[in-house]
Amino acid sequence: VITVGQLGEFPLITRIATTVDDACLDTPTAGGFSLKLGIGDDAAAWSIPDGVELATTDTVVEGVHFTRETIPWVDLGWKLWVANVSDVISMGGTPLVGIVTLGLPSDLDIAAVDALYAGMINACRHYRTLIAGGDIVRSRDVFASVTLNGVCEAEPLRRSGACTGHAIGVTGPLGGSGGGLRVLHDGLAANDALFSAHRRPRPRVASGTALRKAGVTTAMDVSDGLVADLAKMCHASGVGATLFAPQVPVAPALRESFDEKESLLLALGGGEDYEIVFTGDPAAVQRSVAAIDGAAVIGEITNDIRGRVSVLDASGVEIMISKTGWEHFG
Amino acid sequence: VITVGQLGEFPLITRIATTVDDACLDTPTAGGFSLKLGIGDDAAAWSIPDGVELATTDTVVEGVHFTRETIPWVDLGWKLWVANVSDVISMGGTPLVGIVTLGLPSDLDIAAVDALYAGMINACRHYRTLIAGGDIVRSRDVFASVTLNGVCEAEPLRRSGACTGHAIGVTGPLGGSGGGLRVLHDGLAANDALFSAHRRPRPRVASGTALRKAGVTTAMDVSDGLVADLAKMCHASGVGATLFAPQVPVAPALRESFDEKESLLLALGGGEDYEIVFTGDPAAVQRSVAAIDGAAVIGEITNDIRGRVSVLDASGVEIMISKTGWEHFG
Repeated sequence: VITVGQLGEFPLITRIATTVDDACLDTPTAGGFSLKLGIGDDAAAWSIPDGVELATTDTVVEGVHFTRETIPWVDLGWKLWVANVSDVISMGGTPLVGIVTLGLPSDLDIAAVDALYAGMINACRHYRTLIAGGDIVRSRDVFASVTLNGVCEAEPLRRSGACTGHAIGVTGPLGGSGGGLRVLHDGLAANDALFSAHRRPRPRVASGTALRKAGVTTAMDVSDGLVADLAKMCHASGVGATLFAPQVPVAPALRESFDEKESLLLALGGGEDYEIVFTGDPAAVQRSVAAIDGAAVIGEITNDIRGRVSVLDASGVEIMISKTGWEHFG
Repeated sequence: VITVGQLGEFPLITRIATTVDDACLDTPTAGGFSLKLGIGDDAAAWSIPDGVELATTDTVVEGVHFTRETIPWVDLGWKLWVANVSDVISMGGTPLVGIVTLGLPSDLDIAAVDALYAGMINACRHYRTLIAGGDIVRSRDVFASVTLNGVCEAEPLRRSGACTGHAIGVTGPLGGSGGGLRVLHDGLAANDALFSAHRRPRPRVASGTALRKAGVTTAMDVSDGLVADLAKMCHASGVGATLFAPQVPVAPALRESFDEKESLLLALGGGEDYEIVFTGDPAAVQRSVAAIDGAAVIGEITNDIRGRVSVLDASGVEIMISKTGWEHFG
C-alpha cells in the first residue's frame, strides 16, 4: 500500500493528470467545444465560440489551511474568493461567476456562515464577479470551496511556455502576506500594512491583461511562494531558472518589522501575495514591467536541471533557501 | 447563538440566497454576461453569446454521505459525477466539463484515488464529458466535490414554474436505487438490477432535451426522493401538488425483493434514481410522456398550501408517508 502522504501532492497530481490524459476523453462533444488546458495549470481552459472559457477551484479546510482562532470568517471568505480570482487573472482572463460549496458541522454558529459570505460578497464587489449557486453539506471540519469561471479573449497564459533565454518578471512586491502572518504568529508589534496584505490580498485584473498585451506567454500566480511556484513553472516547462535576489521587489512595509535578510526571505518564500510571476522574451518582459506599476525583472530562464531554481545575491553567490512554500501532504 | 443544525439546511440555503440577492452583485460584467438563475435551482445559469451556460456542484463527505465499507470507490466516483450530470440534464442541458476537488487524509491508499477517478472516467465516457482540472487538499475525512459546466440551447427548465392546473410527470421508474440500498442494508437476497440501479444510476440526457422540445417549463431531478423533491419544487413555485400513487412508475425489480406496498414507498421516498419530475400544461406533459420511454403522468399541481404534497391511493384516500428523503442537517 502506498498512501497519499507517502506519494506527496505533486506526484499525486501528476498521477491523476496522466490517468485522465490516458483515458483520452476528449472526443467531440456538443457544438464548438474543445479543451485547451486540462489538469496542471492555474485554471482549466476550453474554447467557446467567441473566445476561451476558464475554470479554477480552490478549497480551504479547517485545521489544515486555517483555524477559527487565526482568521476571521469574513477574511477567510475574501481570501478564498480572491485565490480563485487570482488564478483566472494569471491566465490573462477576466473572472466572472463562482459556485460555492460549504462543508459545515451542525454545531457551527450561523454567524460564521454569514461572515464567510460577507467576505465573498465584498470580494465580488471589488472584482465585479457573481455568486451563482453552490452546495452545502454536513462535515466534521469546516471546509469551503469555490469554483470560479472566467473568460479570456485569446490564448490563455500558461505555465508550460518558459524557454531558455526568457527573462523572468513579477507583477509587484512580494512577502507582505507572509510577513503579516509572521507578525501575528510571533506576536510582533502591529503592522497594519502587512496585516492588510495578509487578510485582504488584492490581485489586479489589469496585470494579467497587460501581460497578454505585452506578448508574454507564460505566467502563474504566486500563491505558495516565489521560489516554490517558479520551480513548478520551470518543471512544467522543462527548464531551470536563476533569480537575482537584489532585483526581487520586497513589500516596503516588511522593513518596519524585519531586517533586510528576513524581508528578502519572506519575499522569496512567503505565499499568498497573488502577484504573478511570468516569463517571455526579454523585450516582452520589459514592456510588461513598463506597463504594470510595481513590476520588475527578477531573473532568467536557464537550461539548468528541470524545475531547479537558483537564487543569487548581489555578488552572484547562490543563496540557500530553507523555506520554499509548503506541500499539502507529507 | 443559532447553529447550522438548529436552522436546518433549507432555511440556511434560503438565508444565503437572500443575502446574495440583497447584495445586488449583478452589475454589468464582461461582454454579454448576465445571470439567469442563481442560488436555489438544480444548476445556476447565465447567458453566453450563443445560448445559456449551466453550472452545478455536488459533494460527498465520508461518514455523512458514504462510508468506505458500504460503497466501492469506483462506484462513488461514478455516482458523484452522475449526480452532477443529472442536475444539468434536469435543466434541459448538455453536460460538458467538470472540475474535481478532493479532500484526502495522508494515510489514504492511493488505490482509492485511482478507483475514484476510474469511476468518474467511466461516467465521462458514458456521458461524453471531460475532467478539466481540480484541486487536492488534506483533510481528516475524505470528501469529493465536482463542479460541472454544461450548455443549454434556450431557456433552462427551472424549479419555479409550476402552476395550478399543471399536470405532473416523471421520466422513468423510481425506487430502484433506494431498493438496492435497502437490500444491502437489510442483508436480503441479492438483486442485481437493484444493485446496479444503486451503484450505477444512468440518467438520460435525451430526457431533458425531450422535455424542453415538448414544451415543459418546470423540471427537477429526483435525488432525495419523489415526494421530498416535488415538495421543494412546489415550494419554489408557490403551489401544492397531488400525486396519484397507482400512476407512479415503480422500478420492476423492486417486486423481486419487496411487497407491493414497500415497493411503492421506495418509489415515493427512495432517492438517487436521477429521473426527472416535471410539470407543464397537460398537453405538454402528455407529449413528453409519449416521447420518453418509461415516463408517466403521476399527478397534478394544486392551490394547496405552498410546498405541500398529498399522495392519494387508488380509492382517492391520502397515504401518509413517513420517509420523505432526508435533510442534511438536524
